[in-house]
Amino acid sequence: MDPFFDPSSVAVLGASNDPAKWGFWLAAGALTGADRRRVHLINARATSIQGAPVHASLSELPEAPELLVISVPGPGVPALVAEALDLGVRAFLIVSTRVPQATELAETITAAGARLIGPGSLGLVDAGADLLLAWGHFTPGSLAVVTQSGQLGSEIATLSARSGLGISRFASIGGQSDVRAAEILDSLVTDPNTSQVALYLESFTGGAALVSAMQRLRAAGKPTMILTTGASNAGRRLARSHTGALTSAIDAVDAACRKAGAIRLSSPSEIVELAGFFASSWLPAGPRVAIVSDSGGQGAIAADMAEVHGLRVDPVAADVRARIEALLPEAGHIDNPVDLDGAGEKDLGIYARVVAELLADDSVDAVVLSGYFGCYGENAPELLTAELAEVEELGRAAREHRKPLLVHSMSADSQAVADMWSRAVPCYRSIDTTVRVLSRAVFYSSHAGRIAEALELSGAVTPWGPGYAAARDTIVAAGVEVPRAAAVGPGEDLAEAVAAAGIDPPFVLKAGWPAHKTEVGGIALGLPDVTALEAAHTDMVGRLGEGEYIVEEMDSRDHVVEILVGGRQDENFGPIVMVGAGGTETELYGDTRLELAPVSRAEAHDMLSNLKCFPLLQKWRGRPARDLEALIDVVVSVSRLIAANNAIAEVEINPVRVGETGAIAVDALVLTDPAATEDEGAGAPSAAEVAAHDNFDTVGHDNSEPVSTSHP
Amino acid sequence: MDPFFDPSSVAVLGASNDPAKWGFWLAAGALTGADRRRVHLINARATSIQGAPVHASLSELPEAPELLVISVPGPGVPALVAEALDLGVRAFLIVSTRVPQATELAETITAAGARLIGPGSLGLVDAGADLLLAWGHFTPGSLAVVTQSGQLGSEIATLSARSGLGISRFASIGGQSDVRAAEILDSLVTDPNTSQVALYLESFTGGAALVSAMQRLRAAGKPTMILTTGASNAGRRLARSHTGALTSAIDAVDAACRKAGAIRLSSPSEIVELAGFFASSWLPAGPRVAIVSDSGGQGAIAADMAEVHGLRVDPVAADVRARIEALLPEAGHIDNPVDLDGAGEKDLGIYARVVAELLADDSVDAVVLSGYFGCYGENAPELLTAELAEVEELGRAAREHRKPLLVHSMSADSQAVADMWSRAVPCYRSIDTTVRVLSRAVFYSSHAGRIAEALELSGAVTPWGPGYAAARDTIVAAGVEVPRAAAVGPGEDLAEAVAAAGIDPPFVLKAGWPAHKTEVGGIALGLPDVTALEAAHTDMVGRLGEGEYIVEEMDSRDHVVEILVGGRQDENFGPIVMVGAGGTETELYGDTRLELAPVSRAEAHDMLSNLKCFPLLQKWRGRPARDLEALIDVVVSVSRLIAANNAIAEVEINPVRVGETGAIAVDALVLTDPAATEDEGAGAPSAAEVAAHDNFDTVGHDNSEPVSTSHP
Repeated sequence: MDPFFDPSSVAVLGASNDPAKWGFWLAAGALTGADRRRVHLINARATSIQGAPVHASLSELPEAPELLVISVPGPGVPALVAEALDLGVRAFLIVSTRVPQATELAETITAAGARLIGPGSLGLVDAGADLLLAWGHFTPGSLAVVTQSGQLGSEIATLSARSGLGISRFASIGGQSDVRAAEILDSLVTDPNTSQVALYLESFTGGAALVSAMQRLRAAGKPTMILTTGASNAGRRLARSHTGALTSAIDAVDAACRKAGAIRLSSPSEIVELAGFFASSWLPAGPRVAIVSDSGGQGAIAADMAEVHGLRVDPVAADVRARIEALLPEAGHIDNPVDLDGAGEKDLGIYARVVAELLADDSVDAVVLSGYFGCYGENAPELLTAELAEVEELGRAAREHRKPLLVHSMSADSQAVADMWSRAVPCYRSIDTTVRVLSRAVFYSSHAGRIAEALELSGAVTPWGPGYAAARDTIVAAGVEVPRAAAVGPGEDLAEAVAAAGIDPPFVLKAGWPAHKTEVGGIALGLPDVTALEAAHTDMVGRLGEGEYIVEEMDSRDHVVEILVGGRQDENFGPIVMVGAGGTETELYGDTRLELAPVSRAEAHDMLSNLKCFPLLQKWRGRPARDLEALIDVVVSVSRLIAANNAIAEVEINPVRVGETGAIAVDALVLTDPAATEDEGAGAPSAAEVAAHDNFDTVGHDNSEPVSTSHP
Repeated sequence: MDPFFDPSSVAVLGASNDPAKWGFWLAAGALTGADRRRVHLINARATSIQGAPVHASLSELPEAPELLVISVPGPGVPALVAEALDLGVRAFLIVSTRVPQATELAETITAAGARLIGPGSLGLVDAGADLLLAWGHFTPGSLAVVTQSGQLGSEIATLSARSGLGISRFASIGGQSDVRAAEILDSLVTDPNTSQVALYLESFTGGAALVSAMQRLRAAGKPTMILTTGASNAGRRLARSHTGALTSAIDAVDAACRKAGAIRLSSPSEIVELAGFFASSWLPAGPRVAIVSDSGGQGAIAADMAEVHGLRVDPVAADVRARIEALLPEAGHIDNPVDLDGAGEKDLGIYARVVAELLADDSVDAVVLSGYFGCYGENAPELLTAELAEVEELGRAAREHRKPLLVHSMSADSQAVADMWSRAVPCYRSIDTTVRVLSRAVFYSSHAGRIAEALELSGAVTPWGPGYAAARDTIVAAGVEVPRAAAVGPGEDLAEAVAAAGIDPPFVLKAGWPAHKTEVGGIALGLPDVTALEAAHTDMVGRLGEGEYIVEEMDSRDHVVEILVGGRQDENFGPIVMVGAGGTETELYGDTRLELAPVSRAEAHDMLSNLKCFPLLQKWRGRPARDLEALIDVVVSVSRLIAANNAIAEVEINPVRVGETGAIAVDALVLTDPAATEDEGAGAPSAAEVAAHDNFDTVGHDNSEPVSTSHP
């Protein structure tokens, strides 16, 4: 990326003397780097640009510039690019919009061995290389911004400047027609000026490269904060299974963030608030926060908000409490939050002494101080010196214990507030922001990313059709336990088949071909003997016609918990595995969790333990725990199956019945994508495949009992 | 409250010349009102206070002041109060802390017919009456602050001043030892300077008076915004039923807010942000928001955030879209959000024209504009005039359509931003705040409060014991349907009892006295005939001993949805009715809803439709709807039962089985509070009552199947 961020020469096509034009800002910005690189300005009509010499055309340049910036009306761009390529230009930054045939233009550039950012880029900035090719002013600093929306990136840069953090690099990459975000992220790993990365993306095509780049940034100690759209998107992708219907593109982004050790946020403000924290503070080792306030009310609100954000506000340890009570002889019982109860007014030094006691406690991961501190010197100038000395002490305590100390101050911009930031004590105007930032930092700290272990993947399987028997065979090959069963074709004898397979009653009879067996009456449960089985078969053949029927041994165990386990190929991030509460809970309560596949046993356990229904699998209401290990086996097996077979578009076991011993898959659906085996990419299933499931709605197939432990 | 907020005379005990002391600020503040009232300063040692004459003691005052402010060390307060009462003082504001025997002091004051705010008050302010009895500076404005935490109130006042909103009244009411929040709220109904009310409370004792006062404020067009603690409180009250275990004090506060038409928020920042909106804008009629941005990225983030906050971002109506497309010939397809796509740079007038089209649309309740607007004049001074003219146009459009128009501007403090606020266009620094404020405003607008209809309450009932039969009788008397049943005592014949009661098999046998029948083996389900019933009875008597047993007809209907309906007496707000998903979902997913009882049929429907499991009651997966009307009957009946009988501490029907026809209560629990019938107050159940349920844990009694449609 050096030709873009630190070229030895740059030329601006469309340089202007009119401050209302982009060409003015690009020329002015380029000239600020004239000590470091050769700068050429091009304008056919001007005699000079902002006092600098000007060239009338590309052909009059003394050299082929390493980077060519184009800011002329869109229709003129293709011809100029062709001319520049002929001259030997190998890096293009196109700011112009409404460029005709932009896709072809990008192909032309890359075919010539050159690289392109734009069209429609809002520019590039590299504070370390004195590169300023963008509108407006950028404050140098530590945050890199890589964005598909120029103005959103500009908002982040503005907020970053306003917060005092500033910008190391700014890259507006538009539609990523050539240079993609992953390449720029990779270049930031070694950029000495960048300490935090803000990324706004609308497309995650080629997600694996992004995950790798973010993992390298994490390894380099540089947090990546992602902003994207679609978080609220109610319209799921065209779904043919629960696994598809219940997971969205944003869930996959979140899974990718967990794998990469990155964090997704919701707004430019959140990014800059958290980036400031990263720049100033240590990471919290865990979620346990101690809260100190000189107001009982403010402390209580802080504690409430902390718990709402998932932080833990545990009682202060007895020995620490005793020491703090000794510091605050007039206060009552010390708990968490710690109420200074007016002691600060008598002795400002109490703040740092109490905070230091809490930071020293091994059961405290972070301290939040909320209230008047930061206002003393502002409202009573004679207290300023003492307050600033106290800021020093607070910073010293945070440094000594290498733990986060965050302050919410009622003062927005006092000297004390400014000092805190530079002394490893992030300080915010509202308790909302203070607690949210800490909560995000805890999330970031506890999701360090995972490098895929060398997992043994199941071998590729070739499902031979859309039916249930094929799906069963596929999951059995992947190592999943299913009930004993026999397939019975036209003319075959049910009793013989049952005897041969050693299937004990009660039986379940299923028509082998419909995707939605329940809805077409293609399933009969709880058949007590062969006579009942034969009657059900006769009835079903009469209604549905001849075909392959499957007799299964019914899983009639008591106290079984039903869990959904599925997998799919995500168009951006590839194979994904998903778990969810079985039955209607999945849909009503959105109780699902997904990760990029494959997952290890530990990761599978983590997925399950994040389900709201997880207590059902543990000892619950006096009954024994379910066989969690067997369920983990199923999750791992499905994750390896989907990861090793991109011909499988979706796989779903719904439900897995988890008893005290064993986890048995009693229904399965496998949707294949024949094209995938040829082009090695995960794509949409073929039209024929979809047609085979044309009666498949979005909310359920065979597990349609509203609240049910029944066998499907 | 006039003696507190506009006394004809005020005296300050402890007036001081030292700016580090409260007495300085109280004296200085009192003197600012000297044009309106007589001000007396009392200090035994000073010859003058801040240039004003001083009295050495209370006894030297020329009159008994209407309001006496006390700011002396706590131990000296009681004697001074006694002296002042003798002199005829009838209103006390006690700022002092650490006052000994404060409870007795309050009793002394009220017994003398006088009133008290404090001890520990951080003061009173009334901008309209030139009353300033507090530390620091207060900017006059429209927000009243009533707070149990002085410093939290001070933070609200500071933020309100910083936002330009200011304060009408400030009342720090401390522990409410005499004057309570409800009285002050009542006084604000007619206070001409107050347009919004911020209330911070830690105790809601006497909640009914608060609800009434907030209803009157709402009727006067003055929104009440409540802050309290305990929102995150994981520790529920000592719970003996699901209804107790699953609802917290904060749920009752929220129900009270819904009844009062008030709104609970989470922080001082949220209060001031929303108060600013209320002061500047119209209320939204609904949640449908149209979003306009000059950046696709910023528009997309705004739309995502709006949906996350429960707003609706529907596609723009076809005719409106056509008109906007005509205004933006170079833009592509117009959707919601509307992307101006650079049109603003060519013609600033486009902003108001597009916004006006959207505001005029009947299917749009509010418009959010996000992005660069507000920065034009700041970054290019030659554009300032045009931008301010555009602000006028935006305000005109909002006024014409009487709809909210909110702006998120990348500029924090431009002239345009300031102008917007004064032209009915609230403008915020982040999209987060903008969308959150609109979302809260929609909530406020759609919860206008409810005045209890003249509902016919069930007559008082007298449960005669803790057993199941008594509970059944109680709910039957309230109008709830139960299965046919017979109680069988020692020596009575089961077959005869069943025949006499006309009960058809299958039967359920229940031991009548344990609260947790399942856990002691006191329930037998699905008994197919009398022989099986008798065997179960023999077994149960053998294990549990003689006693009252109940035979019930088992509700074996298919496709039944189980719902929990309960009620309890809330210590603050009185009778409460609650609904929840039946079975384990209630606990796992917290799927409950409560309201102050009694409720009307419409309110019961609203409660049920707010459950996440509500789809189960409607047509769902091709099956018919359940009997919602019958379930509503049960909710209304239980709400009237708890409202009419304060001797019932808790009532719970778990589950109500709702079929296609009918809603049948198949288990019930009634916990009584014998004391309540005597003292007319809801209190804790007696020890004897608790002992009768000593095996009752917090998570379940007889419906302990994890995912179950089975009869208990």
